[in-house]
Amino acid sequence: MIRFECDYAEGAHPSILEKMISTNMEQTAGYGIDPHCEKARELIKKECGKDDIDVHFVVGGTQANTIMIASMLKSYQGIISADSGHIAVHETSAIEATGHKVITVPSADGKITASQIAQVYDYHYAQSNREHLTQPGAVYISHPTENGTTYTKEELIEISNACKQRNIPLFLDGARLGYGMAAPDSTIDIKDLAQYCDAFYIGGTKVGALFGEALVIVNDNFKTDFRYHIKQRGAMLAKGRLLGIQFEGLFEDGLYYKISKNAIDKAMQIKQAFKEKGYNFLYESTTNQQFPILPNDVMKKLGEKYSFTYWADIDENHTAVRFCTSWATSQENVDCLLEDIKNI
Amino acid sequence: MIRFECDYAEGAHPSILEKMISTNMEQTAGYGIDPHCEKARELIKKECGKDDIDVHFVVGGTQANTIMIASMLKSYQGIISADSGHIAVHETSAIEATGHKVITVPSADGKITASQIAQVYDYHYAQSNREHLTQPGAVYISHPTENGTTYTKEELIEISNACKQRNIPLFLDGARLGYGMAAPDSTIDIKDLAQYCDAFYIGGTKVGALFGEALVIVNDNFKTDFRYHIKQRGAMLAKGRLLGIQFEGLFEDGLYYKISKNAIDKAMQIKQAFKEKGYNFLYESTTNQQFPILPNDVMKKLGEKYSFTYWADIDENHTAVRFCTSWATSQENVDCLLEDIKNI
Amino acid sequence: MIRFECDYAEGAHPSILEKMISTNMEQTAGYGIDPHCEKARELIKKECGKDDIDVHFVVGGTQANTIMIASMLKSYQGIISADSGHIAVHETSAIEATGHKVITVPSADGKITASQIAQVYDYHYAQSNREHLTQPGAVYISHPTENGTTYTKEELIEISNACKQRNIPLFLDGARLGYGMAAPDSTIDIKDLAQYCDAFYIGGTKVGALFGEALVIVNDNFKTDFRYHIKQRGAMLAKGRLLGIQFEGLFEDGLYYKISKNAIDKAMQIKQAFKEKGYNFLYESTTNQQFPILPNDVMKKLGEKYSFTYWADIDENHTAVRFCTSWATSQENVDCLLEDIKNI
Amino acid sequence: MIRFECDYAEGAHPSILEKMISTNMEQTAGYGIDPHCEKARELIKKECGKDDIDVHFVVGGTQANTIMIASMLKSYQGIISADSGHIAVHETSAIEATGHKVITVPSADGKITASQIAQVYDYHYAQSNREHLTQPGAVYISHPTENGTTYTKEELIEISNACKQRNIPLFLDGARLGYGMAAPDSTIDIKDLAQYCDAFYIGGTKVGALFGEALVIVNDNFKTDFRYHIKQRGAMLAKGRLLGIQFEGLFEDGLYYKISKNAIDKAMQIKQAFKEKGYNFLYESTTNQQFPILPNDVMKKLGEKYSFTYWADIDENHTAVRFCTSWATSQENVDCLLEDIKNI
Repeated sequence: MIRFECDYAEGAHPSILEKMISTNMEQTAGYGIDPHCEKARELIKKECGKDDIDVHFVVGGTQANTIMIASMLKSYQGIISADSGHIAVHETSAIEATGHKVITVPSADGKITASQIAQVYDYHYAQSNREHLTQPGAVYISHPTENGTTYTKEELIEISNACKQRNIPLFLDGARLGYGMAAPDSTIDIKDLAQYCDAFYIGGTKVGALFGEALVIVNDNFKTDFRYHIKQRGAMLAKGRLLGIQFEGLFEDGLYYKISKNAIDKAMQIKQAFKEKGYNFLYESTTNQQFPILPNDVMKKLGEKYSFTYWADIDENHTAVRFCTSWATSQENVDCLLEDIKNI
Repeated sequence: MIRFECDYAEGAHPSILEKMISTNMEQTAGYGIDPHCEKARELIKKECGKDDIDVHFVVGGTQANTIMIASMLKSYQGIISADSGHIAVHETSAIEATGHKVITVPSADGKITASQIAQVYDYHYAQSNREHLTQPGAVYISHPTENGTTYTKEELIEISNACKQRNIPLFLDGARLGYGMAAPDSTIDIKDLAQYCDAFYIGGTKVGALFGEALVIVNDNFKTDFRYHIKQRGAMLAKGRLLGIQFEGLFEDGLYYKISKNAIDKAMQIKQAFKEKGYNFLYESTTNQQFPILPNDVMKKLGEKYSFTYWADIDENHTAVRFCTSWATSQENVDCLLEDIKNI
Repeated sequence: MIRFECDYAEGAHPSILEKMISTNMEQTAGYGIDPHCEKARELIKKECGKDDIDVHFVVGGTQANTIMIASMLKSYQGIISADSGHIAVHETSAIEATGHKVITVPSADGKITASQIAQVYDYHYAQSNREHLTQPGAVYISHPTENGTTYTKEELIEISNACKQRNIPLFLDGARLGYGMAAPDSTIDIKDLAQYCDAFYIGGTKVGALFGEALVIVNDNFKTDFRYHIKQRGAMLAKGRLLGIQFEGLFEDGLYYKISKNAIDKAMQIKQAFKEKGYNFLYESTTNQQFPILPNDVMKKLGEKYSFTYWADIDENHTAVRFCTSWATSQENVDCLLEDIKNI
Repeated sequence: MIRFECDYAEGAHPSILEKMISTNMEQTAGYGIDPHCEKARELIKKECGKDDIDVHFVVGGTQANTIMIASMLKSYQGIISADSGHIAVHETSAIEATGHKVITVPSADGKITASQIAQVYDYHYAQSNREHLTQPGAVYISHPTENGTTYTKEELIEISNACKQRNIPLFLDGARLGYGMAAPDSTIDIKDLAQYCDAFYIGGTKVGALFGEALVIVNDNFKTDFRYHIKQRGAMLAKGRLLGIQFEGLFEDGLYYKISKNAIDKAMQIKQAFKEKGYNFLYESTTNQQFPILPNDVMKKLGEKYSFTYWADIDENHTAVRFCTSWATSQENVDCLLEDIKNI
């Protein structure tokens, strides 16, 4: 079985693994205050073009989302998200488990708009009995989204402005950030995030690391005592340097960008192949997730050799599925798939 | 200003108040284990036609909803509700504050259907990675709904069966239960609730009491140690007999039913008056809340003399509003309104 | 059975009840924004000698404690309390249910000291890995305490200073505040609380009201959006004016002080009677709770006619019990008890 | 600086690392349902001598403790722990953040007794108003404890019986389990834990793994839907096979036992050296943590070359400190320390 079902099927990029091997018997302090984490923080600050940011490392995306969001909200506040947002549907109410509602707005493609934010917020404050309602306290977006779509820089600025005008923070989930930045039509880089978001994270798990997400806190209001939040939510890795080592590896020579590009190249080949067969796509994705709508018999046939993800029923005879590439996707596997698509 | 804005503008029904006065200097044990609470429990069991139920009294509806729901769910479970459900929109994330998601389904009139429940539940269990999703763990309905609509007995049975087949409990919010049962088209009584629900509450606050809701737990699974839940959520009234006294008053001579009828009579007069003017209604309500769609100038004019609730913009020139009657609504006030409607 | 087991065995002081009767059919807005609540707020501001405070009314003490404390703390913070504090032992982990630890310090008499606060706080900040520990975020004291003891003004000032120096708020539980202020050795009044605490509450349930506690928020940091907290925790009474009416009654003519004095007068008579019999006391209480240590046969004998509370085993033959008086304790009942004590 | 401050200063045991390298480019399903996790589960079941147990892998100890404990308790229940227990003092109220109180009992050496459990439990159920108190719902012990002490098999059986008689589950924190089993006086093995505990975990982070703890659920009551708990608390590792791979490595050839022995050998040498200098110890530890009481000048001198942990002030001139060894502690580093101790 050749796996296109997700972007975390393999381990780490070999050069990341090499760093873990070469540092294995070093003795360092625990919990993320070692020289490797320090170095990784410096590298990320450089990527952000900012020195006055805080960088913390956690093991996974649900941790990054939950800890950051819970730390930003007051107990009676919720966070605005697309109804397809990862926090809204794929984290087993992790946000609710910290006491907060995810306030969803409809989204056809995984993105939300500045005007949707304005609408939710302004509706709330227009109510005379608003204390009976969940107060919108922050905004969550992901880039790229769950559907592979990306924000333009212009859209990001509009969303950021909508938040700033209303004095609520903007948090960006960058689980697949590398793949968003490597998209052919990308207009956003890490410096933009550090300018327009109050907090965001740079995903490592899906982009070359064994595990690990780098949380960047831009807004001073959310920096104080953040390590307490990490520890309380069970996300403070004892051998914290493992996170530092991996982000050192990802950012000291631009590895993050280079390997992200591999995923996009491969995804575009697959996209093109399905397109040439005349298939439509559920979302207009320019990143490493592609959502072709396949005739059911084709889906079944391909499923014998490749693993991919069921996404949605389209009609009696067609189903939308997800093919995922990653930093690790080999040309051999893609060639094999391309050939099989061609011969359908 | 004559108030039609809510059904809790006055104090208690005079005969309830009289009971509180006459028992005022009695000495009783606290926290709901006094003879008045015991008597009230017996009366409610009789109404339910069941002896093997537990009855607890709490001060308000948000308490009743939150405590019952939180006690029924496992930490990773959510409760299915109409998107217009009170717990979904008017309780400041009280459910989420206990760690649980409200899983909303769309509803045009405040009601949900057995097939919506089946769909949410069955979708969940059809997923292979379902532990990443909130597990549906219970169902919430209200009768009458936030929109004044009511369930038929047939609908209730269908919903109950959908729940039983899936082994998830059904909880019914009866904040305005009296008004639901007094509706001209009502087919549901308290015995039905005790048969088809796992838990429900009989609202006192809006139906003649100063305050108080009687929680009825039918399903044995949810009875154990329930008083701990009440205390932990701050809902155990020190002078608990105040709740018992009021429910004694409401149920010892059928007062609950009699005064509920007053609200419906008055509401029907108002409904008829608006209808005769040719106005439409936002919801087809047969209970004490009526939602006429008024020309904006009429709304403004009436607003000078009467308080009622803004509900929704319909178009540039029309707005839906809510007129509420209650056990306390006087014929004088209604006559006054009817006259003004007629003279529009 | 004559009840000395608690200070909430009866209903309301007759003049409070009278106010509830006379206002019963008034129509007011709900949720505490009516003229009675406004009036009561003004009266309490006057008692506090301060205008820049916020006053909110809730139904019970666990609500007052939980909502205020949860609203003051960050998620990784706990509140320092005597190990015998009400929040530490008698509220079913209501504080923990909002996510916060109660950090207990030992107390022989229910009181804590400024130096205990300093010790807990300073120890925390002396740790290099302090983010692994619960951060002390506030201080809870009660006046009088669970054991009937009271703070002197000097002690209150010391505690207040210890808190201010460390920038953590001081919250005072005044469930029995009236009885603390009426104690023969009292040196604290409400103005002192408004000067030295960041927040506190004036207990109504145990001092003449049917129910109700008046939360006073002094520190601006904790005022914003407080009504959301009240609603979210299920403590926003629909007919909120019931709380306003009662506090109007308690404070418009000094009723609170007058009826508190009754409890102390009666308690002192009982204390004196036990003393004259040569019995010792578990705590040196000058308020409405008295804790005589009785020979077990005496305890048994008195228990046939009076209800009081078991407190602690002293030795094989002696037990400490609690006798409680209140605003409602009649001289007849006390005389009866005095006679029986004398005749032991 | 030679580090004796903790048992997680290095990376992984070389043979564990080797397994991660050799499997790095394998494609597997995510989230712990891959062949490596399956294999590791089988190995652990074999160690436990039981097939009807569930094994789950999480990244760290706070996760293991929090998720297991929160999943075992009802919302109004707390868990009994030594006041020095890790969950009571070193996890930033992670348990409280899930809504539960840690009910502490005093402990001089980190251990608790069956009779302490009985006392807390039986006191609770002797109260007539027990619903005002936190209900004891489970018991937490660690083996070895935070103080390096260990339970005997007899003590474990007594504790287990005390729990079983009261129908509350026993959970054992085995963060350093390997070192407990390798202690010279050890009488407990994994089979005992699987027989006498309801749940426990086998610590990997401190015993040869990069990270990872294997949670073993013995009691059927706590098995259902456990993966939802893991996901909701942010502890479901995307590349879950990393945990499986490491526990395969630890248990396929007895590596766990072998490397645990190294830590004990080294600790005993250090213990002996301090003993020979006539120093006392704060706790009678037979495991990898040693707590000598040092003259302050000696502590200062050793601190120039070695890192170790401050534990407690003993008197003006003496301080108790902690020296920690691990699977990774080299004889060279120990020899160096022994020499320096000798030459004090």
